[in-house]
Amino acid sequence: MSLLEVRAPLDDLVDALPEGRVLTDADTTGRYVHDEAEWAPAGAPLAVVRARSTAEVQAVVRWCLANAVPLVPRGAGTGLSGGANALDGCIVLSLEAMDAVLEVNAAEHLAVVQPGVVNDALRARCAQEGLWYPPDPASSPWSTIGGNVSTNAGGLCCVKYGVTGDYVLALEVVNGLGEVVRLGRRTAKGVAGYDLTHLVVGAEGTLGVVTEVTVRLRPARSPEATVAGYFSSAVDAGRAVAAIAAAGVRPSALELLDKHCLKAVDDWKNLGLSMDAEVVLLGRSDAPGAAGDAEAAQMLACFTAAGATWAAQSTDQAEADALFEARRLAYPALERLGPLLTEDVCVPVAALPEMLRRIEATSLVHDTRIANIAHAGDGNLHPLIITTPGDDAARARAQLAFDQIIADALDLGGTVTGEHGVGLLKMAGLAQELGPEVVAMHRAVKRALDPHGILNPGKVVA
Amino acid sequence: MSLLEVRAPLDDLVDALPEGRVLTDADTTGRYVHDEAEWAPAGAPLAVVRARSTAEVQAVVRWCLANAVPLVPRGAGTGLSGGANALDGCIVLSLEAMDAVLEVNAAEHLAVVQPGVVNDALRARCAQEGLWYPPDPASSPWSTIGGNVSTNAGGLCCVKYGVTGDYVLALEVVNGLGEVVRLGRRTAKGVAGYDLTHLVVGAEGTLGVVTEVTVRLRPARSPEATVAGYFSSAVDAGRAVAAIAAAGVRPSALELLDKHCLKAVDDWKNLGLSMDAEVVLLGRSDAPGAAGDAEAAQMLACFTAAGATWAAQSTDQAEADALFEARRLAYPALERLGPLLTEDVCVPVAALPEMLRRIEATSLVHDTRIANIAHAGDGNLHPLIITTPGDDAARARAQLAFDQIIADALDLGGTVTGEHGVGLLKMAGLAQELGPEVVAMHRAVKRALDPHGILNPGKVVA
Repeated sequence: MSLLEVRAPLDDLVDALPEGRVLTDADTTGRYVHDEAEWAPAGAPLAVVRARSTAEVQAVVRWCLANAVPLVPRGAGTGLSGGANALDGCIVLSLEAMDAVLEVNAAEHLAVVQPGVVNDALRARCAQEGLWYPPDPASSPWSTIGGNVSTNAGGLCCVKYGVTGDYVLALEVVNGLGEVVRLGRRTAKGVAGYDLTHLVVGAEGTLGVVTEVTVRLRPARSPEATVAGYFSSAVDAGRAVAAIAAAGVRPSALELLDKHCLKAVDDWKNLGLSMDAEVVLLGRSDAPGAAGDAEAAQMLACFTAAGATWAAQSTDQAEADALFEARRLAYPALERLGPLLTEDVCVPVAALPEMLRRIEATSLVHDTRIANIAHAGDGNLHPLIITTPGDDAARARAQLAFDQIIADALDLGGTVTGEHGVGLLKMAGLAQELGPEVVAMHRAVKRALDPHGILNPGKVVA
Repeated sequence: MSLLEVRAPLDDLVDALPEGRVLTDADTTGRYVHDEAEWAPAGAPLAVVRARSTAEVQAVVRWCLANAVPLVPRGAGTGLSGGANALDGCIVLSLEAMDAVLEVNAAEHLAVVQPGVVNDALRARCAQEGLWYPPDPASSPWSTIGGNVSTNAGGLCCVKYGVTGDYVLALEVVNGLGEVVRLGRRTAKGVAGYDLTHLVVGAEGTLGVVTEVTVRLRPARSPEATVAGYFSSAVDAGRAVAAIAAAGVRPSALELLDKHCLKAVDDWKNLGLSMDAEVVLLGRSDAPGAAGDAEAAQMLACFTAAGATWAAQSTDQAEADALFEARRLAYPALERLGPLLTEDVCVPVAALPEMLRRIEATSLVHDTRIANIAHAGDGNLHPLIITTPGDDAARARAQLAFDQIIADALDLGGTVTGEHGVGLLKMAGLAQELGPEVVAMHRAVKRALDPHGILNPGKVVA
C-alpha cells in the first residue's frame, strides 16, 4: 500500500480523534513495534494511536473496520511471545495512556481500572485501603493491567493465589463489530450466560480490545517468612519442589534461579549476591503466625532431604528482599548479554526434576547456553536460551534447543506456555499441543467474535 | 414427527449402542424429563439414553447430528432453572451411569472423574488422601460433577473458596461436530490458546457434552469454628453480613435462613431447631488455630452490632452440624409444601440489606409468601416463592414477584443468577442483564461451536 493510497483514510482517523493521538513519524512509531520477544518478527505499522478513552478506542476500531486495516492493541510492551508485535500496514493501538484507577471498593473487595494502569501502581493503591491485588508478574514495575489481562499473566504468587484471570470479574471491551460491551459482573458470583469474560482474558487482543477491567481484591495478608536453599544441580532443586508439593505445603512463592541468573544480576546491580550455589531455591510462606513458621520449617526439611548444600530461614528482611529482587531482575539482566530465546513451558510438579534434567541434556546436545529461572512451585519453567549477536550457527542451534524443550514438556504432560501466551513464538507449539480439532474450535470462535478479521490477526491461531 | 417417521433412525441408535442403553417406555423416560425447576416447561423426548462411556456419548451425538435431533444432556437432574428439561422429540442423554473416579493425584493436587460422580462421593474419596474438593452445592449428596460443571454450581464454601469453575482444570468434551476433544491442562498454570474450558463450564450443555472432568484439589483444611446469630429481621441480618465483608473477615461459610425454612425442615426432620428467631445467620471460619477464633469473634461482634437478639459461638459440634444440615435441607423441605418458584439473584454485598428490604416489600405488594435462604456472604439470595397447588391467581402473583425481584437485583448492580444457571427460567432476565450486543456475541459463539444447533437448543440463549 503506497502512502498516496492510504493518505485519505488515515486523515479520517486523525480527524476522528483529538490532536496528537495519531503518530506516524518513524522515530516514535519505532518504539511501539516490538514487545520483549526478541526472536519474533515485527512489521511496519501504518500509524500508532495513543488512545485516552473508550470512545477513542471505539473510533479506532471502527476506522479499522471501515478500512480493513489490522489492529494490534498493546500495553507496556513487556510481553515475551510477540503478541503485541506490529503487523505490516496495521494500526498499533497503545492503551498505556489510559492509566486511571477508577474505583477501589473495600466493601466489595474490588477495583475498577483503565487498562494502562501499571501493575505495581494498582497494588500500591490497593494497599492504601488495606487491600491486596495478588497477581505479580516479574514485570510488575512496568507491565499494565490491560496487558496482564490480555496475556493472562502469571507471576510469583500464582503457586498459592492463581493467575491474573482468577482476579478478573468484569471487562469493558470494544468488540470485533466496534461495539462497546460489558462482560462479567461486580458480584462475588454469577453465571448469567457464557463466560465471555475469561474468553477475552488471555486472548492477546484477538477477540476484543480491553478498555476497562474490574478486578477482585483480597484483604492485606500477613508478612512473609522467607527460606533459601543452595543446590549443586537443578535436578536436586526440582526434587525439593516436588517434595514440597507432595507434602501439601502451600508456599506463597517458590522460585528457582541458577548461577547464570545470579551472576548476570550481580554484574549489573552489585547486590552482593552469593555465588556459592549452582541453583538457588527461594520459598515464602504467608500463613499467619505459627502456621507460617511451620510451613517454612517444612520447606527447609524438603530442601535438606533433596540434597541442599545449605538451607536456612532468613532472619534479615533486607537480605530476603534482595533475593526476590534478584529473581525479578533476572530477565532484564540476562537480556543485556545477548538476544534471549525465552521458554515458558509448564509441567506437572512431579515431573519437574525430569524436565530440568532434559533441559541440561538439551543444552549439551545443542551446545547452547541455557539459564534457568522458574516459578518452580507450579512447574512453570523459563529456560532462557542465550546466543551471541551475529552468530548464525548459534542461532540455529538455539532454535533446535527451543523446539526440543517444547517437545519434552509436552511429552511429560505439560503445556508450551504457562503464562507468557502464544503470540507468534508459540503458535507452532500450540498446534502441537491442542491438535487440529481444538485448533478448529479456536478458529470458529475467532471468526464468530472477529468476523472481519481485524483484531490482531495472525496471532495465537492463524 | 410421527412414530412411523422416526422408527428407522432410532433403530440405528439402538444398534449403535450396547443393549439396554436406549429407553423409550414412558414410565422410565418420565423420570428424565424434568429437573427441579417446577415452573419450567418440559417436552416429550423421543428416547432417553443412559451412556456408560465417552464412545457411547459420541455415538449419540453423531446420531443426533445425522438425524437433526436435539440432544439434552443431564446429570442427576437437581438443576433449578430447567436447563436439563426435555424438549419435544429430543434425546435426553443421562450421564449418571458414568460414575467412576479415574484418578486422585496427591502430588499434583488433582482428580480426574467421569461426569456422573456424585459431588459428596468425590469429596469423600479425596478425603481418604488428605485432599479436599471444595465446591459444595446444597445438592451435594445427589448432584453430579458433570451437572455441577455444566451449571458452574456454587455452594456454601464459595464465599471463601470460589465456585465449581475455579476448580476445573480440564475437560473431555464431545463437541458440536461429534468429535471427542480435550480442553485445558493438568498443569498448575497454562495459557495455551483461548479458555474454551471455562466457556464450556456453565454453558449447560449448549456447547458440548462433558464426558470427563479434571478438577483441582486443595490439602485438607482445619476444623471449622461455627457461630450463629438470631435476628428479628432479614434486613438486620443483611447489615451484619455487609459489616463482616467490610471488616475484611473471610468466613468459610456465611449462610442465612429464615423461619419459614427452619420450620419446614423441623416439621420434616424433627431436628429440634429453635424457632425463636425470624432469621438465623450461620458463620464458619476454617482459619487455623487462634486466627479461627479471632474470625469467629469478629463475626459475633458484627452480628451484635447489627442488632442480633442472640449470638454465640457453638461449642457443640453436633449442634453446629445440625444447623448446617438444616441449611442443606431447606430447599427439599420447602418443596414439600407446594410448587416453588426459585430465585437466584446475587447482589453486591453492601446492597444486601436493601435487597432483603425490597424482597419483603415485594412479598407484601404481591401478597405472596417468600421464604429466604441465602449464601449471604457472597450476596447470593434464594428467595423461594411458595404457592398453593391449583391456585392460578397465586401463581400469577408469584410470577409478578419473581420479575420484581429480578428487576430489583439488576437495579442494585446484581445479576439474575448467581449459581443456578439460566436454563429456561432466566432467559428473559439474561437478555435484560446482558443487553442485545452481548446476547448477539453469545449467539455467535453458540453458532460457532454448535453449527448444527443440536446441543440443548433453546436454552441459555434462544
